[in-house]
This record gives sequence, C-alpha cells and structure tokens, in this order.
Amino acid sequence: MIQIRIYRDGARVEDALDLPHARDILASQDAFVWLDAIDPSEADIEAIGQVLGLHPLTLEDVRHRGQRPKVELFEGYTFVVARPMRLPDGALQEGEVHALVGRRFLATLRYGDAVLDTDKLEHRWLRQPRLFAEQPGGSAVYFLLDEVVDGYLSVIEELEDRADDLEDAVTGGRLPQDGPNAQERIFRLKREVIRLRRVVSPLRQGLDLIQEEPWLVGTELLPYYRDVMEHAIRVAELADNVRDLLTSLLELQVAKEANQLNDTVRALTAWAGILVVPTLIASIYGMNFAKMPELGWHFGYAFALALMTGASFALWLMFKRRGWL
Amino acid sequence: MIQIRIYRDGARVEDALDLPHARDILASQDAFVWLDAIDPSEADIEAIGQVLGLHPLTLEDVRHRGQRPKVELFEGYTFVVARPMRLPDGALQEGEVHALVGRRFLATLRYGDAVLDTDKLEHRWLRQPRLFAEQPGGSAVYFLLDEVVDGYLSVIEELEDRADDLEDAVTGGRLPQDGPNAQERIFRLKREVIRLRRVVSPLRQGLDLIQEEPWLVGTELLPYYRDVMEHAIRVAELADNVRDLLTSLLELQVAKEANQLNDTVRALTAWAGILVVPTLIASIYGMNFAKMPELGWHFGYAFALALMTGASFALWLMFKRRGWL
Amino acid sequence: MIQIRIYRDGARVEDALDLPHARDILASQDAFVWLDAIDPSEADIEAIGQVLGLHPLTLEDVRHRGQRPKVELFEGYTFVVARPMRLPDGALQEGEVHALVGRRFLATLRYGDAVLDTDKLEHRWLRQPRLFAEQPGGSAVYFLLDEVVDGYLSVIEELEDRADDLEDAVTGGRLPQDGPNAQERIFRLKREVIRLRRVVSPLRQGLDLIQEEPWLVGTELLPYYRDVMEHAIRVAELADNVRDLLTSLLELQVAKEANQLNDTVRALTAWAGILVVPTLIASIYGMNFAKMPELGWHFGYAFALALMTGASFALWLMFKRRGWL
Amino acid sequence: MIQIRIYRDGARVEDALDLPHARDILASQDAFVWLDAIDPSEADIEAIGQVLGLHPLTLEDVRHRGQRPKVELFEGYTFVVARPMRLPDGALQEGEVHALVGRRFLATLRYGDAVLDTDKLEHRWLRQPRLFAEQPGGSAVYFLLDEVVDGYLSVIEELEDRADDLEDAVTGGRLPQDGPNAQERIFRLKREVIRLRRVVSPLRQGLDLIQEEPWLVGTELLPYYRDVMEHAIRVAELADNVRDLLTSLLELQVAKEANQLNDTVRALTAWAGILVVPTLIASIYGMNFAKMPELGWHFGYAFALALMTGASFALWLMFKRRGWL
Amino acid sequence: MIQIRIYRDGARVEDALDLPHARDILASQDAFVWLDAIDPSEADIEAIGQVLGLHPLTLEDVRHRGQRPKVELFEGYTFVVARPMRLPDGALQEGEVHALVGRRFLATLRYGDAVLDTDKLEHRWLRQPRLFAEQPGGSAVYFLLDEVVDGYLSVIEELEDRADDLEDAVTGGRLPQDGPNAQERIFRLKREVIRLRRVVSPLRQGLDLIQEEPWLVGTELLPYYRDVMEHAIRVAELADNVRDLLTSLLELQVAKEANQLNDTVRALTAWAGILVVPTLIASIYGMNFAKMPELGWHFGYAFALALMTGASFALWLMFKRRGWL
Repeated sequence: MIQIRIYRDGARVEDALDLPHARDILASQDAFVWLDAIDPSEADIEAIGQVLGLHPLTLEDVRHRGQRPKVELFEGYTFVVARPMRLPDGALQEGEVHALVGRRFLATLRYGDAVLDTDKLEHRWLRQPRLFAEQPGGSAVYFLLDEVVDGYLSVIEELEDRADDLEDAVTGGRLPQDGPNAQERIFRLKREVIRLRRVVSPLRQGLDLIQEEPWLVGTELLPYYRDVMEHAIRVAELADNVRDLLTSLLELQVAKEANQLNDTVRALTAWAGILVVPTLIASIYGMNFAKMPELGWHFGYAFALALMTGASFALWLMFKRRGWL
Repeated sequence: MIQIRIYRDGARVEDALDLPHARDILASQDAFVWLDAIDPSEADIEAIGQVLGLHPLTLEDVRHRGQRPKVELFEGYTFVVARPMRLPDGALQEGEVHALVGRRFLATLRYGDAVLDTDKLEHRWLRQPRLFAEQPGGSAVYFLLDEVVDGYLSVIEELEDRADDLEDAVTGGRLPQDGPNAQERIFRLKREVIRLRRVVSPLRQGLDLIQEEPWLVGTELLPYYRDVMEHAIRVAELADNVRDLLTSLLELQVAKEANQLNDTVRALTAWAGILVVPTLIASIYGMNFAKMPELGWHFGYAFALALMTGASFALWLMFKRRGWL
Repeated sequence: MIQIRIYRDGARVEDALDLPHARDILASQDAFVWLDAIDPSEADIEAIGQVLGLHPLTLEDVRHRGQRPKVELFEGYTFVVARPMRLPDGALQEGEVHALVGRRFLATLRYGDAVLDTDKLEHRWLRQPRLFAEQPGGSAVYFLLDEVVDGYLSVIEELEDRADDLEDAVTGGRLPQDGPNAQERIFRLKREVIRLRRVVSPLRQGLDLIQEEPWLVGTELLPYYRDVMEHAIRVAELADNVRDLLTSLLELQVAKEANQLNDTVRALTAWAGILVVPTLIASIYGMNFAKMPELGWHFGYAFALALMTGASFALWLMFKRRGWL
Repeated sequence: MIQIRIYRDGARVEDALDLPHARDILASQDAFVWLDAIDPSEADIEAIGQVLGLHPLTLEDVRHRGQRPKVELFEGYTFVVARPMRLPDGALQEGEVHALVGRRFLATLRYGDAVLDTDKLEHRWLRQPRLFAEQPGGSAVYFLLDEVVDGYLSVIEELEDRADDLEDAVTGGRLPQDGPNAQERIFRLKREVIRLRRVVSPLRQGLDLIQEEPWLVGTELLPYYRDVMEHAIRVAELADNVRDLLTSLLELQVAKEANQLNDTVRALTAWAGILVVPTLIASIYGMNFAKMPELGWHFGYAFALALMTGASFALWLMFKRRGWL
Repeated sequence: MIQIRIYRDGARVEDALDLPHARDILASQDAFVWLDAIDPSEADIEAIGQVLGLHPLTLEDVRHRGQRPKVELFEGYTFVVARPMRLPDGALQEGEVHALVGRRFLATLRYGDAVLDTDKLEHRWLRQPRLFAEQPGGSAVYFLLDEVVDGYLSVIEELEDRADDLEDAVTGGRLPQDGPNAQERIFRLKREVIRLRRVVSPLRQGLDLIQEEPWLVGTELLPYYRDVMEHAIRVAELADNVRDLLTSLLELQVAKEANQLNDTVRALTAWAGILVVPTLIASIYGMNFAKMPELGWHFGYAFALALMTGASFALWLMFKRRGWL
C-alpha cells in the first residue's frame, strides 16, 4: 500500500486519496507530493514508475533488494539508495530505503525492518518550513540522509563502548566465564563495525555526487549537505578507529595466550621436576640389593623422607627464584 | 566453425551461409552481422580478421588464450576481452570471450567451457528491439557484459553463502570431521574469491574506457553502461567483504588453536600432577627400609590407599577450581 | 561566563564589560574582540551566536562535544575545531576548542580540561604587534593552531622516548617484574600514538582549507601557516614512526615468546630424560626376581648408583652439547 | 668490442668496419646504425658517447651497473634501461641492457649474462620491414622491450606453476622429505616473484614516458607500445597473484603447524595417561605393607594385570572417542 | 665560527676575512659567497640571518635541530634541510645540514657528526667550472644533495648486504651462537632501514619543489636534478626491498620456530613412551604378589630385561618410521 501525503508552502495539506489524484497535483506544480511504501508490491512499483516517469533501469533496480548505498542522477529525478542501521540490543539491524526525489516529489520505498522513522522525518521537515518550502526535494533528501547518518553515529558510538568494555576485559583478564571467549567476541564486534563501515563509503560518494545537481541542492542547502558529509566522515573515522583497536586487541590476546602457554609449560616443567626427584629417591630405596647400608639405619626411613622433602623443597625454591612458579 | 547471424531493424533475418556473403552484407551497411565461433581454428581467426579488417596486433591477441579482461579501442572497431564465470557445484569455472564490435558487427570468439549462453544473449537483444536497432554494436556489447557481470554476482553471492556457513562452523565448532580442516577450507574459498576479484578490476577499467567511445556508446546507452558499472562495483565490494571475512576467520581459527593448546597443556599438567603424586606415595611405601612403622600397621594399606586417593582428589579439586580441567 | 578582551593596533585596551558593549565595538570596526568561554552554557552559546551572527548549523555543532578537528568556511567567519593534547605524567589528556574567527573577532569555546593556555596565547600575539595589528583574525588563529601543534610535538616526543625505553627493555630483557607485561605496555602506548595520529590528519586538511581564504590568511601570513603545516606533518611522521616501531616490537616480542617456548620445551624434554632414566634403573633393581645376580654383589648398590649417575650425566652432557640446556 | 650493423629501408646492408665510418653514415641521414657492445670497456663507452653525442650524465649512468629500469628523454636521443630475466632451471637470471635510441641509431650495451638474444631481435625487425623502415628508432626499441616483457611473461608463468605445485604439496601434505621445508620453499619462491615484480613497475612508468615522445613513437607505433604495456600489466598482475597466493600459503602452513602441535600435545597427554595409570597400579602392589590381602590371592597377579590392562584400555577408548588419538 | 669562501667565474678567489666584508661582496653581485658553520652559535645564526636577509621563520627553524628534510621557497632564497647518513662500522650515523641558497650565496649550517665532507663538495664544484660559474646557487645545491643521496646509496647497499648475510644465516641455520638471536638482528636491521627510508621521501618532495624555481634551477641544470631524483627513487626502492625481505625473514623465522616446536614436542612424546614402557614393566615385576610365576623362572630376570629392551626398541622403530625422531 502506498501512503500519499501532500505539502504546500512547507506545511502539510489534505492527503491525496489515490495515485491518479497525486499525478494531477504533481502536474499542477504547486505542491510537494510524498509517496511512501513499505515492502511495495510489483504493482506498487509499476504504478509509482508511471506516475513519476521513471527510467526502466531505475524500476529494475527498485525491484531488487540488497543494493549498495548510491546516488544516481537521471533526467528529472535522482535515485538515492540508503541503508539505515540501528543496534537495538544485540545484533545490528539494517534496513534499505530507495528514494526517488524530484523538484516536487519524493517517493520512498522501504524494505525489511522499518528502520527509518518517517514520522520523525516529517516532523523535522515541518520544523524548518522555510527551507522545505523553497527547496522541498533537496531538503527532504537532506533530512532523510541526516537521519540515516545520525543513526550510524549512534550505532558506532555504541560499538565503540562495547569495544572499550572488551578492551578492559582483555587487559584486566576479567572476561566473563560463560559465553564466547575473547577471540570470538572481538571477531563478532569487528564484523559489525565492518558492516557499518561498508555502507558509509558509498554514501559519501553519493553525497559528493548529489551536491553537483544544482536544481536539487541550491546554495542555501550546501552547508547542510556539507554538515551531513562531515558527520559521515566522522562515522567512518570512528569505525576505522574501533576496527584498528579490535585488530590490536586480537594481537594482544594472541600475544597473551603465547605468554600464558610459556608460563604453563614452565610450571609443568617445574612441577614435573619437583615430583619426579623424590620418586627417583623412593625407587632407589626400593631396590632389592642385599647390601644397602641405609636400609638398616635406625632413622633410615626418616632420612629418606627428609632427603625427598629437602630435594623437592630445593627445586621448588630454585624454580620460584627463576620465576617459573 | 563460424556461425553467422544477420539482424535488421532489431529483428533477426535469414542467416548468411558463408563469410563472403557476410562481407557483402557488411558492405551494404543496412544490417548487423554477428559472427560467433567456439574454439576457433587458426583459419577461422584469419578469415574473421580479413572480413572485419582487424589490426595485426588484435589478431595476435585473439590467437592467445589467458588474456586479462580489457577494452582496446582501434579504428573502426573495439576489442573486448571478458572472462565469464560460473560456480556450478564445486569449483569455479572460468571462460574466455574475445569480442570484436563495430558499428554494424559483432564477432565473439569463445574459448574453453562455453560459459557464456549466446541464445540467452540474443533473446535479450530481441526483447529490446528499439535499443538494438538504433545502436546495435553498443547495445550488443552492453548485453554481453551485463550477462558476464550478472554471472559474477551469482558467483560471489554463492561464495558469500559458503563463507557464512564456514563462519558458523568455525565459531560454533561444528566442522564436519571428514574432509579438509578449517584452515584449508578458508584458504580454498579465499582463492576462489581472489580469482573472481582479479577479473573485476580490469573489467571496470574497460567499462570506463568504452564509455569514452561516442560512436559505440551513445547518450541513450550511457545509463545502461553506468548500471553495469554499478553492478561490477558491487561484485568487487562483496568480494572484498568476503575476503576480509575469511582473513578474520583464519585469524580467529589460529587464535582458537592457540587457546586450545593452552587448555590442553593445562589439562596435561593437571593430570600429570594427579597421577604422579599417588605414584610417589606408592613408591615411598615400596622402599625396603628395615624400620618403617606404617608397614606394620593393621590398616597401613588402607591408610596408604586413602592417602593416595585424598591427595589426588585434592589436586583434582584445586585444578578444577583454577579452571585447568 | 564569557571573558571579553579588546585589542587595538596590536595592543590590548580596556576590556568590554558585557556582550552588548562588545557588539558595539565590533560594529565600529576599529578594534579586535576576543570572546573566551570555558565550558559555555547554552545561554552563552546563544548569546555569542547572536553577537557574531553565526549560522544555525555552526550553533548546532558548537553545542556538541566530540567534534573532529576541522575548518569550515562560512560567510563572514571561519569555524575551527582543534583538539589540544598534553601528556602530563601518565595518560594522554585531550581538550576541545571551538574557535570562530572573523576579520575583527575571535571566539574561543573551550571544553573539558583547559588544555589550551590562553594567557600564553595572548602573550604571543602581543609579542608580534605588527602582524597582529594588520591581520588580527588570521594571526590569532595562526598562533592558536601553532600552540596546538607545538603541544602535539611535545606529546609525540615524549611518546617516542617511552617507546625507546620499552624497546630497550624488550630487547635487553629488562622489563620490570611488576606492572603490566610487555605486550600490554606496547598495546597501551600504541593506543595513545593512534589517538594523537587521528587528530593530526584532519587538522592538516583544515590547514590546507584555511589557506584558501584570502581575507583571513593574507600573503604575509602564508609562510607562517606553511610553517604550522610543516610541524603538523612532522608530528604525523613521528607518530607513524613510533607506531611502526611498536608494531615491530610486538612482533619481536611474540617471536621471542615462541623462541622461549622452544627453549623451555627442550629443557623439559632434557630434564625428563635425565630423571626418568635413573628411575628406570632403580625400578629394574626393585624387581623381585628370585635370581638377579647384581643384587647379591658386594658393591651392587654402589654399582647401581654409579650406573644411574653415569647415565644421567651422559644425558646431561649430550643435551648440553646440543644446546638444549 | 663494438659490433656495428647498418640498415637501409628496413633491410640490413654491409656492416661498417669502425666507428668513424659509422659516424659518417649517421651524418648522411639515410641509414639506421646499430652499435652493440657486451660488457663494454671504458674506452668503448667513451667512443660511443662521442659518436652519438651523449650527455655527460648519460655517460655517467652507462658506466654504472645496477640501474633500475627507466626511460630518460634527452635532446636527440632517449636513454632506456631494461633488465631482461630468464629462469633456465633453478634460480632467476637477471641481465642489464642500456639502450640509447635516436631517430637513426640504436646503441645497446649489454652487461652480465647475455640474457637478451640480439639475433632474435634483428630477426623480428626484418620480419616487419615497413614498420622498421619508417620509424626505425621507435620500432627497434619496441621490439627490444617486447622481447624483455615476453621474457618476464615466461618467467612469471613458470613461477606460477611452481607456486601451484607447492600449494598442492602443502595442502596435500605431500612435501618431499629431503630438501628445504615448506616455509623455506615459499620464502624463496616469493623472493623471486618480488624480484620480478620490482623491475616491472619502473618499466611501466618508462613505457608511459616514451609514448609522449612523438619523434620516437609515431601514431602507427602507438598500438604496439600499448600492447607491450598491456603485457607488462599482465606480468605485474600475475606476479601480485602469485605473491598473494604464497602469502596465504605461508599463513596456511603456519596454521597447520599450530593445528598439528595441538594434535601432538593431545596425543602426548593421552599416552601419558594410558602408561602412567598401570604404572601407578604396579607401584601400589609393590608396596611393602605387612597386610595387603590381594598379595595373597591365588589369582592376585592376574587380577593386577587385568586391572592395568582394563584401566589402560578404558583410557584409550575415552581418548579415542574424544578424538585425541 | 663561520668560514667564508669566495668564488668568481667558477674558481675560488681569496677568502673574505669577516662577515661585513662578505656582505660587501654580496652587494657587488659579481661573486659567489659560501658561509659554512659547524654547530653555529646563536650569535652566528643571528649574523648570517642579517647578512643574507632571512625571514624570522627561517631563523626560528635554523635554531632547532631535528628538522625533517625539506625545501622551502622564500623570496630571494631557498631553505634546504638535508640529513646525510653514513654507516661506518656498526650503527647508522645521521647528520643534519641546513642550507640557505640564493642566486649568489650558499650558507651551510652543519650539526652533530660532521657527516658531510665540504672539501669533497668544493672539489666537485671546481671540477665543473662552467656549470658552477653560470648557475652557482643551483649547482651548489645540486652537488650538495647529490653527495647526500650518494651517501644514502652506500648505506642502503651496505644494509642490503647485511640483510643478505642474515638471510643466509637464517635459512642455513648458521646463526652465530653468541650475540643477539635472529629475531633481534632482523628487528635492528629493519629499524635502520626504516630510519633511512624516512628521510628519503621528504627529500624527494623537496627535489620536486626545487625544480619549480626557475631562477635557481635553470634548463641546463634540470637533467642533473632529474638524475639526483632518479638516485633518490632507487634508494627508496632498495630500502623497500630490504624492508620487505626482512619482514618475510621474520615470518620465516617464526614459522621455523613453530616447526621446531612441533619437532621437539614429538621427540618429547616419543622418548617419554620409550622410557615409560620399560619402567612400567619393571614396576610390574616389582609387585609383591605371593604368586608371580615369572619371578621364579631361571631366566626370569633376563626375560624381563629382554621384554623391556624389546618394547623400547619397537617403540623407537615406530617413532623413527613416523619421523618423530
């Protein structure tokens, strides 16, 4: 189902009931039309394509999910693909929005988890009525992309917090016993950061491209677009930082494992010595030679025990001093 | 053998029976000629070269397999090398297609596994008769390269699925017992991704180059070429993602091995202690001293066994608490 | 609270008492006004915005901390974000300064630890009265950024010293026993270097940008800005060096651990052999066979002990020669 | 000794006997002169410099071996350094050729192993007489560089084969027992690939540069130079592939070693347990307590042996099931 | 102390005795003045600054050591910083030279180890009197930078030799016993290579910049500067090669350690088995059961010894065949 909203002079007016009506309004050139569809059907896409006069290649692209973020300039409209993200509790959620923006219209086709909040978007339009009235298409896309990039900023800040926690846990050796171990936690967090990083680079290219379309982005809007760009760069830099931190952290973790293995093998060596030496002594006094003077001594047994204890203690002391225990 | 097909006004007309006939049609300038050869012989190449008036260097290139994807502009024609791929079940299959395209002709020389489906290609031409009629050469190459890039997309998506399965297996520790181990699976998958990645970069350069040839790619075709380009970039990005994932996965696997080695050596140390201590006790009571009070005790044997069991249990408990067991 | 200072002809004159007064002075165009606020309140920002006529987007940015270093050119003023740093004893301290500079005014909004010393800054202005009198805005920003970059230089030189100390400790094996181990020291130092490195790159971009604003940076100031740029490049290069050194050092440390493990396992193997062989001999003479000639020998016991000692010594010698001990 | 050959209208004419004669022919402008010297003496270089009018810096360069591949444009001639390679059986052989090419002359100074086959070169010139007659200098250099790059192609294909063999050996565990181990084989092969890779990049830059010299490389020659360039790019890409493969292979090999170490330590742990448990039992029954009921049993000995065997078998079974054996 | 030398028409004339005299000569415009100071005092710098009319920023820079190599263009003169190096026996020595060059003067301020040989420099000037007479400033700087880059070339060739020796030692296992181990040798060599590499990149940028100053570097000097550039590129490439070789070598060394650890643990496992099995047998015959038939056998002892020897030999044979020993 396609929701149709009509705006005039920066304010919302009565809604159009159906697409033919919207087409009339579009033709009259005095209002801004927003067509919004969630998981549009084949028929919806066809209808929107006819109303807005879309190129067959655009229709082809709109039909397929899994597009990368991009901005494509066509005659009379611009095709924008954005991938909003959020990180509610556990795993990263990724949406997909196809936006078709002209001088007097915006069509948004939203797929999957409705990650983009359209009411919040409209609220922001109406809060800046002058900007929206003068350059409705360009400012609509600005607010849309600003929402998306702000979402990225929240996500990367949350990921940064988790990476910091993980760092504390690794360096302090305070990893929770249950659940996946350090390596896997690092690996999973890194994957999410990379997923976020991947959508930011093409978005930046798209932002570069859209600023070259003067009918869409006028001089007054340029600082706004520059501002989104700035935020996108910050997201990318934060993501690179977190990724580098996680890479270093994995290296640290591997180095710590190697360190620990060394310690364990040293402890093994030390304890083997401490236990095998008295066993050797006991074996010696277990021999069946006819003449073994010590066996007849009154305190022979005590002597043997003392010998064992003494030897073990001497070894223990030596290893302790060498730092092997 | 060379198959010759003739097209007029976007539709297929009667086939030419031999090359001289095709040459006449080419001279008359009112039809589009497609010469298609699978594993062409030396004579075939010579004949095609004469009919189309190819440069000696082109002929030299066409004779040799193993060319990298490229677009070379010559006077009167463009030389395109593409390497279609598919991934039927197991390993990646790679074909090689040399295409010579002029204003009114296309020659395709296909080598090795017939990876490119020419019937499907012709079907796509005829479904867009207007485009094909107006710019036959440019659109023929467009459909050819679009087929190739779509093939890459299928391949990389399949490789991505395999990488995801491998990731689940590695993180979940659910690798099948038989067959190669995790490291080798990762290594092999990575090789295939790299093979795919290698053909995409030069193809992108070629796509850039071909769009600068106005007689071949007119304004109307530009969005189509931009679309192929977009898909090629997506293939490259997906390939980079999968490769990065596999690199991280190998790191994770190595880190897990180090972790496991630590665990194993700790278990070894713990069990050595648990077994060697009672052995030491038994050795002590196996000594042959004349005076060893315990040996005469009524419950001496039971006492010794209890001592051994107790010591072992105490050690077991200690190691259990330290998490070594 | 906003501190207001007034300068005329390169010298400081009486202070303005309040913002309306400052606004009058700004309007009269014959003096330079410096508004300085530490941790400004929302009302402060609003007031400064009104006095200087700032763009809503600038106000939005000024309100949020955690900005990356940047230079943004607006009509009539330039917005500069800098992140001064210092390294008093232990950890890196990072401040944040938002500067708004026009032809006749500078506003500095300082957040967090007051890392930037404004008295020192003013002192440097007044020491070059001619430069400050002719291009007050541009030279004020120059001195500010020069202070910041000089701070970076001190920080990176201190970090370089610490890295050199760490290198000596790792290669000489003279790491202090207490405190974190080598890997963690390397990791932490690297993090600080990366934090510094991250703020330098965008600062360099900002310095490039600001030099393109002729009303702010006149010909006379260009060599000065080039000089700051030069220092910023030097900071970046030093940081890259230290980071590369630390990466190599971690590799060295891991390689040394592997080496040491080899040595430890060899020592373990050698000592196991040296102790188990006499135990075997003792066990043999502890067997209860009715006829064991040695048991009856007069020097049987001594012979056995000699055999044990001899075998152990031979093994010890062999392992010593192979370099396992 | 300098060999002097004279060509007129694309064919070889009588040779000049000495350098003065060659100088006269050069002055008369109607023939192409080729001076070829193997390991030229100081006097030879001086003489060639005088005849061709070389710049002192060129003479300086020609005197020193170990130049990197390059193209330097001087007035009246171009200085080309190429490093032909071949891989006869074992190790890579690298030659060095200094070529000085003018409109009507070519001088080649060949050093070290005569890797470049001049007869083959001349043969190729004479097979394309028209090209050689019209642009003798440019085409002579083309054929020379084409020979060199074709040599690289043979070398890299051979190296690729060796890398594939090595990969099969590593993944299949079928490395020959004698000779260096996998790591060293990979390391050595990688060194050769890097040596090849290093000469290709500057050669590509040289090829770019030479095409900007219209008196040397006319329009007709451009496709030929583009073709050499294409081959050089292919060599570089193949070399990068082989290098990446070898890097992955070393990673795989290290990962396999870690895997194997894990297996070995597990086997060690398992066998230690299987052998120490019966030793413990035997030690128990070797104790000298006055009252140990089992010692008096009729089947006591058999019972003890059964106990040992049973315990060992149970342990063996357990470890087998856990996959440690 | 400042040494003052005067040159006229490419030859050295009588020296000026003091700075005022040098200033007069400079004003008369018909001679070239060279001011040379080793570790100049504050007063020297001030004096030179006054005589040559230097910018305050230049003076500021000249006062501080530790500058990176650079070329800065000022009005009337160019400021060049170079860092000559040499490698006398052990560690790398690094000097620092600040050069101020104008049309008719050169001032060199040399710090630290006098790594730059000024007599050799003057000797080279006077050997090319025509070049020096026509463009004294440009050619003086050319010879200076050529000296520096030639020094780098000697250093990197020496480092390359050392790296090759190290490679032979690592692959052949012929490392000297005493002194640091392989990892540390690699690490130290790499540090020196990186130190050299770091000064070359900014020098190349400086060479690029200086060639854009036509009053300093005329057409006739261009090939000479291009030649230095060429050598600088060669130094950088050699340094990259050596660094890559050392990185590969460290990887190889780590892989060899892992390999060796595997071998050692296998040997440990094998020998443990070979020694523990006869110990078990001896323990069995050391049991005190009343009825143990073998104990009464005539050749029981021999049988037991044979059993032990046989079992150990069988194990030894098995491990030998599996390649564990």
